[in-house]
Amino acid sequence: MRLHDTPQSGNGYKVRLLLTRLNIPFERVLYDIDKGETRTAEFLARVNPNGRVPVLEIAPDFLLAESNAILWYLAEGTPFLADDRRRRAETLQWLFFEQYSHEPNIATPRYWITHRVLDPLREAQLPGKTEQGYAALGVLERRLEGHPFLVGDRYGIADIALYAYTHVAGEGGFDLGRFPALRRWLARVAAEPRHVVIE
Amino acid sequence: MRLHDTPQSGNGYKVRLLLTRLNIPFERVLYDIDKGETRTAEFLARVNPNGRVPVLEIAPDFLLAESNAILWYLAEGTPFLADDRRRRAETLQWLFFEQYSHEPNIATPRYWITHRVLDPLREAQLPGKTEQGYAALGVLERRLEGHPFLVGDRYGIADIALYAYTHVAGEGGFDLGRFPALRRWLARVAAEPRHVVIE
Repeated sequence: MRLHDTPQSGNGYKVRLLLTRLNIPFERVLYDIDKGETRTAEFLARVNPNGRVPVLEIAPDFLLAESNAILWYLAEGTPFLADDRRRRAETLQWLFFEQYSHEPNIATPRYWITHRVLDPLREAQLPGKTEQGYAALGVLERRLEGHPFLVGDRYGIADIALYAYTHVAGEGGFDLGRFPALRRWLARVAAEPRHVVIE
Repeated sequence: MRLHDTPQSGNGYKVRLLLTRLNIPFERVLYDIDKGETRTAEFLARVNPNGRVPVLEIAPDFLLAESNAILWYLAEGTPFLADDRRRRAETLQWLFFEQYSHEPNIATPRYWITHRVLDPLREAQLPGKTEQGYAALGVLERRLEGHPFLVGDRYGIADIALYAYTHVAGEGGFDLGRFPALRRWLARVAAEPRHVVIE
């Protein structure tokens, strides 16, 4: 398999982490998104018409975009995704929460800050995003106060999806000091076998 | 089942449409989000710690949030979700595209405009959201130029999820005139049996 990716992307990291845990070999193809390398006519035609990475090239005619869709595809039938209908629904609930409430408010400020692309309009959006990012972290904290992992007390793709940008939230200006259960969960995830780091 | 919802929500509409097509009776409980009715201590404790609707109350101890997770849960084992692994992955790809690239750029301007909550910061964000919203509509157009529906040439939950805010995109300032394949698809979806309207 070939993973179309960009350095330091949490969305790409999710996929690399699961591929590694599943012992699936893959080749990583890196693009510089600041230079528009995922918006070229060739990329849009062949890799992803939505101009984003990660994209997993599963076969020459089957390229799958959207990091959490890729996690689900890879995890189906493995211990990283439950068989139980309710647990599966709860997993999807966390995956959509991640892309709608967590990623835009935690990953986006991190990107603006670390890539030095803060302009006045983005500066003006930071307080609102920070507030909503802390609210998302609070939702995680509340769940993790009574549970070791996000779904069914067992490590799975919901943990992988939420860990990706939470563990580097500090780079977006977030202080995780007020979330003790969340910090214990971060350590628990990092201590799992075959864990890899973001890069 | 009980659907916790708010008037004119496209996310709630997706669930009502699928429940109706599946002939599943349900009760609709409406909240006024402008008055903060989904942010009360009671709502956060009992319905959704993330303070959002829709939430489907499947059993007294099983409340499921995130519209597209609800669609998946309800559609499993029905003609609205394929059995094939690749088609299922493509369905999820569209569902995550909807929540990440489509909804924030098309539904959010519609909400700001129709609820009359445009402030200067939101006004300043409108051009960027409009540009990204048109890009998302362009991705849909490109797929629909050669296919009657989004996945496997058959109506399913990807169509329901994307139809919800696309068919009312005009209320967010979008002109669908430049997307002929998309407009034919909107008509095709609306002509399906047991179709219901947003309200």
